[in-house]
Amino acid sequence: MTSITRDNCLALDQSDTLADFRNDFSLPEGTIYLDGNSLGAMPKASQTRALEVITKEWGTDLIKSWNQAGWFDLPSRLGNLLAPLIGAADNEVVVTDSTSINLFKALAAGLQIQAGKAETAQRRVIVSERSNFPTDIYMAQGLTRWLDRGYTIRLVDTPQELEAAINADTALVMLTHVNYRTGYLHDMQELTRHAHQQGALILWDLAHSAGALPVELNQANADFAVGCTYKYLNGGPGSPAFIWVAPRHQEAFHHPLSGWWGHASPFSMQPSFEATPGIRRALCGTQPIVSLAMAECGLQIFAKTSMQAIRRKSLALTDLFIQLVEQRCAQHPLELVTPRQHGQRGSQVSFSHTHGYAVMQSLIGRGVIGDYREPGIMRFGFTPLYVRFVDVWDAVETLRDILDTRDYALNATRHAVT
Amino acid sequence: MTSITRDNCLALDQSDTLADFRNDFSLPEGTIYLDGNSLGAMPKASQTRALEVITKEWGTDLIKSWNQAGWFDLPSRLGNLLAPLIGAADNEVVVTDSTSINLFKALAAGLQIQAGKAETAQRRVIVSERSNFPTDIYMAQGLTRWLDRGYTIRLVDTPQELEAAINADTALVMLTHVNYRTGYLHDMQELTRHAHQQGALILWDLAHSAGALPVELNQANADFAVGCTYKYLNGGPGSPAFIWVAPRHQEAFHHPLSGWWGHASPFSMQPSFEATPGIRRALCGTQPIVSLAMAECGLQIFAKTSMQAIRRKSLALTDLFIQLVEQRCAQHPLELVTPRQHGQRGSQVSFSHTHGYAVMQSLIGRGVIGDYREPGIMRFGFTPLYVRFVDVWDAVETLRDILDTRDYALNATRHAVT
Repeated sequence: MTSITRDNCLALDQSDTLADFRNDFSLPEGTIYLDGNSLGAMPKASQTRALEVITKEWGTDLIKSWNQAGWFDLPSRLGNLLAPLIGAADNEVVVTDSTSINLFKALAAGLQIQAGKAETAQRRVIVSERSNFPTDIYMAQGLTRWLDRGYTIRLVDTPQELEAAINADTALVMLTHVNYRTGYLHDMQELTRHAHQQGALILWDLAHSAGALPVELNQANADFAVGCTYKYLNGGPGSPAFIWVAPRHQEAFHHPLSGWWGHASPFSMQPSFEATPGIRRALCGTQPIVSLAMAECGLQIFAKTSMQAIRRKSLALTDLFIQLVEQRCAQHPLELVTPRQHGQRGSQVSFSHTHGYAVMQSLIGRGVIGDYREPGIMRFGFTPLYVRFVDVWDAVETLRDILDTRDYALNATRHAVT
Repeated sequence: MTSITRDNCLALDQSDTLADFRNDFSLPEGTIYLDGNSLGAMPKASQTRALEVITKEWGTDLIKSWNQAGWFDLPSRLGNLLAPLIGAADNEVVVTDSTSINLFKALAAGLQIQAGKAETAQRRVIVSERSNFPTDIYMAQGLTRWLDRGYTIRLVDTPQELEAAINADTALVMLTHVNYRTGYLHDMQELTRHAHQQGALILWDLAHSAGALPVELNQANADFAVGCTYKYLNGGPGSPAFIWVAPRHQEAFHHPLSGWWGHASPFSMQPSFEATPGIRRALCGTQPIVSLAMAECGLQIFAKTSMQAIRRKSLALTDLFIQLVEQRCAQHPLELVTPRQHGQRGSQVSFSHTHGYAVMQSLIGRGVIGDYREPGIMRFGFTPLYVRFVDVWDAVETLRDILDTRDYALNATRHAVT
């Protein structure tokens, strides 16, 4: 196999049909940003939109903006923009609260739906992975401890153990579609099918897949999903999360966080809760409007392309990164953590290294921004909307130089003593 | 009694020690804004701060800002700024999530604390008011239905019935300090004392009192409090809410929304939840940073004055408004809903009128922004930091003219047919 050159990468950028989307983002000079899987970069439109909301909608129009500027409708409007990216339809998604809070709603409602059916009422197990993003597990722990009805959480250690762990005692399966650390991508279709075959419901956390790859919630016949808008969807730091409920469950979807935004007539100020029909019953209290409104700018960019095009470039970028690291850093003890198979890979690549923490510090010091997760894992996220093929080359060159020169040694010493 | 004149009001503004704070806000031309009890006006600093967070902290520094810009610490930093306004100390308050969500946490933790003590374990009643802000009641309904352990909510119809309703079966009392509709102010000290005497815990919703009048949570020996930062605290539309837990309850404060921000070591990614010591255990998921950071601007203004000075002006404004309406609109059927006694009045005045809705529409049409609540109630909020005495005069003159000329008649017809 002939070696790839920097010119090859530049040529790939030349023929990249998504290349122009980079202009929609504000990216710092001299930085190669490979951490969009943690915090997406800033769409240029976000700043303008924020100023409009702050200066005009808040500063000038004040209270009138709840109706006039559609603030109260934002969770639905953004949900409808987001829906096509995850294989959902209109009125199935709302953008609101945090991922943790939304997960709680879906877990609570899911367990209640199962408890209400004779054939599943006795089931007391929630299945997940030990390597799931911790807050997902914490929320399940919080819920089940509190319910105090004998629910337990069964955590498996590898994706391969999942199918056996989902069985006739399983009330609900809670999985993150793409693992935050390894980048492993679950087979949503197959796991959903298996869960249903076993009589369980399934809740997908799309934090690392929404906006990163095509998700087909309805096609997979999934039950519930939650996710984040500040990673691949570029909504801004901590921008509100989303929740999707399959239309067939919406009528039975009841959760304990029954705040006024989920009421059938929120402004009639009745002293008794009555859930509004449809997905807006997943809402609870008043939303942070500026952060919410800005999330629309990230979503609007996606409306101009397709998740298929994004996925093609994502796989090309991650393939290239793996190939270049393995070619150009071959003599260094880097271990690929992310699956090689496209069907099992999200939009990030993780490599482990004994001095992973220190190496990542050196990379960041030289403007290549990835991040680090124990044990020894360097994460590199590839956001097709703004990462170029030549960035991949330059990032690998920087990595190679750091490893060749042991430039990370000082950082390694620092890490060892803290 | 001699009549008050517009010149008298201008003179009051001249000698008002808080007058200069109006310059800290951006207020629309030609508007008298008497709805700060619903959505506070915009501090000028908010726009600058938002741009700094968006352009520099997000756009340029990206992921580094979680530590470098102190994003992760914002809930505590803002909580400590807010604490003195509500009679709390450092490390007792965090700004996070919505009021509804925070109320849920406090209710859940409070009931659990009661259930854990032999002498209160059997108590199953939550006492509140039917006229409480509905979402507070909805959240209690959501929680208790869901717990399914026989908890009931006892709603009283008047403040006078409260003491009798809080008795030996009461686990928890949940009250909004100032009623959103009538402006009635509860005696926090006395009701807290009575609740404790009866063995109950008490949870105060400060949505309409934080920033409006001095609140003394520790002095009153209250147990829990929640509240809103986008009304009198001018944090911006839907800016995150706050929660306070009395130091004596913090160790036992456990709630089911146990997300990673409340974990003892949130970045160690352990698969088991362990609550962090102190008030940060009331945190759950990732916060909307732009909306959160902007809330600091509202709070910083308060640091330059005292709640006592604000209260003095608030009472002077509401006294003046009542007096002027009663003098100048004497021949019209307006009924004062808000208590005349200072000790029972928040920072708003409500008048009812058969055509209250229509009259309020006319007022808004002429630039006097209050709001309307059924049945027939016109609400006027007085925010001492930016409302002038002459505004009170001009608002009453506008009201008088609308009533004298029956300018509201067309609106009344419209209201009747919708």
